[in-house]
Amino acid sequence: MKKAAAAALAAPRNRISPLAPAAFPELPRIEGVRFAAVAAGIRYPGRLDVMLAEIAPGAALAGVFTRSATRAAPVLWCEEKLAKAAGATKSKGGYAVVVNSGNANAFTGVAGRSAVEATAAAAAETLGVPRDHVLIASTGVIGEPLPVGRITAKMAALRAALDTGAAERAARSIMTTDTFPKGAAAIRVALGNVEVSLAGFAKGSGMIAPDMATMLAFLFTDAVVEPKALQAMLATANAETFNCITVDGDTSTSDSVFLVATGKAQMPPIRSLRDARGRALQKVLTDVMRDLAHQVVRDGEGATKFVEIHVTGAASPAAARNVGLAIANSPLVKTALAGEDPNWGRVVMAVGKSGEKADRDRLAIRLGDILVAENGQVASGYQEASGADYMKRSELTVGVDLGVGSGAAKVWTCDLTHRYIDINADYRS
Amino acid sequence: MKKAAAAALAAPRNRISPLAPAAFPELPRIEGVRFAAVAAGIRYPGRLDVMLAEIAPGAALAGVFTRSATRAAPVLWCEEKLAKAAGATKSKGGYAVVVNSGNANAFTGVAGRSAVEATAAAAAETLGVPRDHVLIASTGVIGEPLPVGRITAKMAALRAALDTGAAERAARSIMTTDTFPKGAAAIRVALGNVEVSLAGFAKGSGMIAPDMATMLAFLFTDAVVEPKALQAMLATANAETFNCITVDGDTSTSDSVFLVATGKAQMPPIRSLRDARGRALQKVLTDVMRDLAHQVVRDGEGATKFVEIHVTGAASPAAARNVGLAIANSPLVKTALAGEDPNWGRVVMAVGKSGEKADRDRLAIRLGDILVAENGQVASGYQEASGADYMKRSELTVGVDLGVGSGAAKVWTCDLTHRYIDINADYRS
Repeated sequence: MKKAAAAALAAPRNRISPLAPAAFPELPRIEGVRFAAVAAGIRYPGRLDVMLAEIAPGAALAGVFTRSATRAAPVLWCEEKLAKAAGATKSKGGYAVVVNSGNANAFTGVAGRSAVEATAAAAAETLGVPRDHVLIASTGVIGEPLPVGRITAKMAALRAALDTGAAERAARSIMTTDTFPKGAAAIRVALGNVEVSLAGFAKGSGMIAPDMATMLAFLFTDAVVEPKALQAMLATANAETFNCITVDGDTSTSDSVFLVATGKAQMPPIRSLRDARGRALQKVLTDVMRDLAHQVVRDGEGATKFVEIHVTGAASPAAARNVGLAIANSPLVKTALAGEDPNWGRVVMAVGKSGEKADRDRLAIRLGDILVAENGQVASGYQEASGADYMKRSELTVGVDLGVGSGAAKVWTCDLTHRYIDINADYRS
Repeated sequence: MKKAAAAALAAPRNRISPLAPAAFPELPRIEGVRFAAVAAGIRYPGRLDVMLAEIAPGAALAGVFTRSATRAAPVLWCEEKLAKAAGATKSKGGYAVVVNSGNANAFTGVAGRSAVEATAAAAAETLGVPRDHVLIASTGVIGEPLPVGRITAKMAALRAALDTGAAERAARSIMTTDTFPKGAAAIRVALGNVEVSLAGFAKGSGMIAPDMATMLAFLFTDAVVEPKALQAMLATANAETFNCITVDGDTSTSDSVFLVATGKAQMPPIRSLRDARGRALQKVLTDVMRDLAHQVVRDGEGATKFVEIHVTGAASPAAARNVGLAIANSPLVKTALAGEDPNWGRVVMAVGKSGEKADRDRLAIRLGDILVAENGQVASGYQEASGADYMKRSELTVGVDLGVGSGAAKVWTCDLTHRYIDINADYRS
């Protein structure tokens, strides 16, 4: 199937976000991993909705998952299998990743676990990998039984379609309410005298999209990395990328991020993040994940503004992040952003409610480069007209200095618009 | 001025909430307290915006306040003065309470403190009470200097208008975006062989209304209660009333609740909540505060549904409340309520993100009496049509049983509608 036809199959139901990048980026082929995607009719007919990634033997895998107490069956499965994998330094056999959109297989009781096991069995048999080497993610409606037979019936077709260049097609197949597919890559990154690449794609249109959709991301590199170092690398990068975005403060039952190091590059393994090559790979991983995280915010339901909240002067980096999230999650801040209102009083309110240490009389607030408030009151040179003018931009930075320490963090969010309510208040159909 | 004229003066800018009570209740006169309200032009001309309550000598006072780190100047003043008062068993001299709407005197730096001191000095001189016996609350726009001269200039007129029957007029003068004044009372409550009354009024249209408006409540009883017992009584009642409501999860810099026991009833003082009379008064106080708290939710910005979240089977009452608030604050739950969508999957999500102990496979969810989900999956007898039918009501109960303990709590909220965004995204004018 040609790319244009694939795009049509996954055509988003909503018009593309005004904050979307101009185009899907060119993703490098990563030796050791192949992709396929098909339309299996999970929820809607004629829409790409199942993807398969086949990972050649010798890879290391890592994952981070939602901390929700009501995690979906596929998340529990992956946590179990990756805990096993992270313990091994060398794995025998290849891996498979099977992802479906249209149904989250969440809150589906015993049937949910059975569906996961049936998927794992089918993928294991079709690709000749161990059952415990099949990772699974599901995104879509919650509480409805997953029609798993539609996935297993497509396994042979998926295997036949496997292609190292099909990452964009895979990225499209995992979309739910996303209005554009999300990809990012780092090409020919020097690790000592070896060059590796890293490519990733993601889906998500908020921490939660309608009907319990999800944030999912998949990252692949040909670098050689030991599993424990890979896991540490992913967790560290995740803390300052996907864990620093919010659309509506809601947390999915299914959020999952996977990092695969196929190990096909000719290099001694990276065993630690303290290693110079480990640091270099960590940096590009963070850059690629931040890019994908920003794209998720740019596709936030109803978003018309992409907003960076930059908190400085906090008691610690964690305190800075909490203050940033309190601001980013405040409905009153988000509606003011939508209304292009430089309503900095709501930022003061959100700082106050964060529960973190702050001193009202040391607080400073900036809109871009404009100093709006300092020392507990409006800045003497501040003109409301310049604040209002700044707010008309589609990309905004809100700077908050707490004046109590040296902790800093950046958090990204979008505005809260009528479109968010349209998308989420509609009766499910 | 006749009541009709007073009502016109405070005419709400927005149409009255569809969830409003039919009428403002008849409030009993409480011996030892008199009210007055005038239009001082704080923000809008011709609108009641300053109230004065005069409390006769011998009263005990208690207060609970926002825990925001960016509390407004009047809140800091009251905390300081009441800490002093709570330490004394007998106070000399009367008290005054001065409240203005239209300006929150929040984030106003040194000028904010000066405005509070000027107000206290003017009220103290006019009424002949100690300066430290003047309590102050301000609600309205943040970050703009309070035109305190407009308040002090009206002090003589306020004194001249003092009337034991003017509580409704006082309730109207503290409104900001409220669409109706909020009052509640308990009349002739038997405490042993004595009868006392309790009356209160409140304002609030969300935890936060536009431009940092506020939740304020004032309660008065003629009972004789020692200050420490009064404070304990208020804090206990507050924990299960005003602290269990949410419109948007945002916390004001100015939220304040005051309880005054004028001590005019002929009875020995209540010294403890364990006293039978203390328990009886505590119960009616809680009932009156719950009534006022519900009215605040019923006036939630844009609200079309009044929703009780009843959480049972939690590890503790505090855990139950946290789960309830996680559900009540979820934008996805609130938009589903607005859309009359029985989207119980979003309730599962909110339970999961609350951070409290829950067992996915023991969770049960009810809409009114309809069992929707149990044992980690949709209930076998559940028909989506009956759930959808139930959601059309304007008063809803969502029941959640966590199945892990015996902790229970009720939390009240409203839906998230387009009107909320209209109100809050409008540029301040």
